[in-house]
Amino acid sequence: MAYTAKQIADYLKGEVIGNQDVSVSNFSKIEEGKPGTISFLANPKYTSYIYTTKADIVLVNEDFVSEKPIQATLIKVKNAYTALASLMELVNKSTPQKSGTESMSFVSETAEIGEEVYIGAFAYIGEKVVVGDNCKVYPQVYIGDGVKIGKNCILYPGVRIYHDCVIGDNCIIHSGAVIGADGFGYSKEEYVYHKIPQMGNVLIEDDVEIGANTTIDRAVMGSTVIHRGVKLDNLIQIAHNCEIGENTAMAAQVGIAGSAKIGENSVLGGQVGIGGHITIGKNSQIGAQSGIISNTKEGSEIMGSPAFPVKNFFKSSIIIPKLPDMYKQLNALEKEVAELKNRLQQID
Amino acid sequence: MAYTAKQIADYLKGEVIGNQDVSVSNFSKIEEGKPGTISFLANPKYTSYIYTTKADIVLVNEDFVSEKPIQATLIKVKNAYTALASLMELVNKSTPQKSGTESMSFVSETAEIGEEVYIGAFAYIGEKVVVGDNCKVYPQVYIGDGVKIGKNCILYPGVRIYHDCVIGDNCIIHSGAVIGADGFGYSKEEYVYHKIPQMGNVLIEDDVEIGANTTIDRAVMGSTVIHRGVKLDNLIQIAHNCEIGENTAMAAQVGIAGSAKIGENSVLGGQVGIGGHITIGKNSQIGAQSGIISNTKEGSEIMGSPAFPVKNFFKSSIIIPKLPDMYKQLNALEKEVAELKNRLQQID
Amino acid sequence: MAYTAKQIADYLKGEVIGNQDVSVSNFSKIEEGKPGTISFLANPKYTSYIYTTKADIVLVNEDFVSEKPIQATLIKVKNAYTALASLMELVNKSTPQKSGTESMSFVSETAEIGEEVYIGAFAYIGEKVVVGDNCKVYPQVYIGDGVKIGKNCILYPGVRIYHDCVIGDNCIIHSGAVIGADGFGYSKEEYVYHKIPQMGNVLIEDDVEIGANTTIDRAVMGSTVIHRGVKLDNLIQIAHNCEIGENTAMAAQVGIAGSAKIGENSVLGGQVGIGGHITIGKNSQIGAQSGIISNTKEGSEIMGSPAFPVKNFFKSSIIIPKLPDMYKQLNALEKEVAELKNRLQQID
Repeated sequence: MAYTAKQIADYLKGEVIGNQDVSVSNFSKIEEGKPGTISFLANPKYTSYIYTTKADIVLVNEDFVSEKPIQATLIKVKNAYTALASLMELVNKSTPQKSGTESMSFVSETAEIGEEVYIGAFAYIGEKVVVGDNCKVYPQVYIGDGVKIGKNCILYPGVRIYHDCVIGDNCIIHSGAVIGADGFGYSKEEYVYHKIPQMGNVLIEDDVEIGANTTIDRAVMGSTVIHRGVKLDNLIQIAHNCEIGENTAMAAQVGIAGSAKIGENSVLGGQVGIGGHITIGKNSQIGAQSGIISNTKEGSEIMGSPAFPVKNFFKSSIIIPKLPDMYKQLNALEKEVAELKNRLQQID
Repeated sequence: MAYTAKQIADYLKGEVIGNQDVSVSNFSKIEEGKPGTISFLANPKYTSYIYTTKADIVLVNEDFVSEKPIQATLIKVKNAYTALASLMELVNKSTPQKSGTESMSFVSETAEIGEEVYIGAFAYIGEKVVVGDNCKVYPQVYIGDGVKIGKNCILYPGVRIYHDCVIGDNCIIHSGAVIGADGFGYSKEEYVYHKIPQMGNVLIEDDVEIGANTTIDRAVMGSTVIHRGVKLDNLIQIAHNCEIGENTAMAAQVGIAGSAKIGENSVLGGQVGIGGHITIGKNSQIGAQSGIISNTKEGSEIMGSPAFPVKNFFKSSIIIPKLPDMYKQLNALEKEVAELKNRLQQID
Repeated sequence: MAYTAKQIADYLKGEVIGNQDVSVSNFSKIEEGKPGTISFLANPKYTSYIYTTKADIVLVNEDFVSEKPIQATLIKVKNAYTALASLMELVNKSTPQKSGTESMSFVSETAEIGEEVYIGAFAYIGEKVVVGDNCKVYPQVYIGDGVKIGKNCILYPGVRIYHDCVIGDNCIIHSGAVIGADGFGYSKEEYVYHKIPQMGNVLIEDDVEIGANTTIDRAVMGSTVIHRGVKLDNLIQIAHNCEIGENTAMAAQVGIAGSAKIGENSVLGGQVGIGGHITIGKNSQIGAQSGIISNTKEGSEIMGSPAFPVKNFFKSSIIIPKLPDMYKQLNALEKEVAELKNRLQQID
């Protein structure tokens, strides 16, 4: 679908400068601007691109003043970035949505399916499952027996939810994510592992987004809990009986070992590992690739493996490459001091 | 299904203290105890919870003596933890099991399917596949041509097994695991990679459990071998031609590069990386996030990247944050020694 | 299928030494050689195995001279390794290939399917999808609306490609890989994350291979680009708006954060993490488990987290275990220098 500069300006309550009839059908970054697209200028570092961009329309802040002629049509708005986001949201919402039940899906007779639900081909919905209104269950999704899913959720192709897990409203789960597989729990006799049945489930609250191929294991008893507003990137591992606090975000490939608790409003960088039974205080910031092996206080900003305060981490990092020289220097100094001592003894 | 305290005590040969008619239908941890559940007290650290828990029944060791009134019904048994595990096992086994072949599955005419096998909808079973008795092939599983699977295996939804791989008896493979994808093998000419066909397979022995979204690549020739009793957590990578020894356990997100051999009875922490062609001695313990770039002896307990003995690792870890201060201290000392030397020369 | 030594020698233009009628049907490594297989000897380190191998045929370089009797039939060729590779390629090509459309697949009426395409059961091909000639779409693959796929591609079971992504010719994508899931993009208001619609796509050029369960996110706008000849191993994360240069190879479990650019002809070891918006110069070599937080020059060979030149990395690594001793040594030295100073003052 294409929109003219005038249509867009009307929607955003902005002012057109240039050809108001030019139309665009996609977005682009200003430095990669292409004909037929709309871009934006929010960060002054990118100002130079506005004079060369091939984008047909550029959203700019209302205080923008051009220093040279600009080929693109401009739309002046209060805040170019916010305007862009609202435009993307609009386009996203106006994209035709999947609906109805495609042939060759499997829906148990005992499942309760809400209104306006999309069920794709080869999706499997087990016994006594509840799927709330307006959910989208894409092709090849598996929903095990007894699972309950709230309203307005999107389960992308190939999501797997094991039996008896519970998902809140407005959740988005991406392809290949596995919710509720058995926790890694065994008792050990001599060298042989005996499986401990994992009798609990996974409980995901509202407004959670879960990335592609991320895995969240069911609890041994009780629930592995993902609280409201949590955002998990791809390929993350959440072990059994963990609890992830509200509005905490984790970048890709983070691993959280069993029974760890992550406080609310925290941010974990990519590839971080959290040890079992660890508690991370709320509002924490943990740098990428960190390893956490002891509890941390509220508001910690830490990095390293094992982690320590991030400011010190970078200072220490600068020293690491100097270690071989320090080692030589230290040993040379030791010799010198021994000599000095010797000479001093002779003087005495 | 609900059980009364009396029924449970009879099964466990324990003694009821309290209301023998109270019934429970689920398990809970004592600190999270909920009405309608049974919990247990094994670790003395948790004793205080027994006076406040909302669980209706608590398993306790026979020597437990209460100091205050307890609301819950107690069942005294020899070993509360073992009793709990056997109870979980019982409940697990009594859960109604899937059976039969659901509609819309694809089973090649040349496949041999054992007795009492469950085949879920949208499962794909290729040519000349053998599936042993009592296996459960959940929906959306893919079993490639020529694959052989033993008895009593569980393949959860979305497991993929490429052609000609072999799986033993009593194996459990979780959703999204990929067994037998091509190893990462190329010959390089100038900058261009040419694929080397991966002609081998994956051989998984008995009693192996493989976590969700874990990947085990097929050998270039011969077999990538996972020996009996190995337990792999989620999101693990096992490259081509690796061999994992009996009863070795790996936590999530471990990566093993090509042709590495891991000795039996070893334990690898989360996010460990093992280099190509490395041999890890049996009975080894490797700490989380370690990187192993040389062979290790039997019984090694190591950590770090690159790894060294774990005791030293923690000692060194304490020093790392002090490096900036050490660096200053060392340079200050060097100056001082130079001055001392100078003054001493003047004295001479 | 079995081939005799004579048939193989004729194909390779080699010379048979021994029984030219012995036949083999598989490959093996010389140290694991089994009856009925052909092996090869290229690396002199493995020469001793030729006298004991159970392989029926061994390819050897034409200058090979035996020192003892050898049971196996030998085939002398110019280059044993190249001969082996060409033989594997031949066998691989002669393996019967899947073709046609299996029942119970879902192909939109508006999709354009090329000639000689295989479409497996439970595969889903959405609206306006284009699939080029000679592609193999294995069972349970998902191809979203508007996706375009070139010629000769192989999509293994359970690959997911979200809408509007573009794949070139001769690409191989392994099971469970997810192409085009939403990038991890939010705006934050107080503590609450608001999703930014991810309006771009993923663009994969020709000759790319993507490992099992690897994830490549779609761009927020524009494209996440994987250039020609890139080889990605399993469980890799490529975030939104990244650009991976031609013929770059990455080992398993690498994570690339948003908008990073990796130069062509680079090699990244396993579990490497690259920070957001980082640029890696072409022809770089990055050691396993490294963490990259600043731009790197062309031809860099680096390692560590944060990374520095690989030669220094190994030198520093040797010092790390000595840090506790260095710390004691430094403090002891400081005391001694203070004493010396004291005594010197007394002398003055």
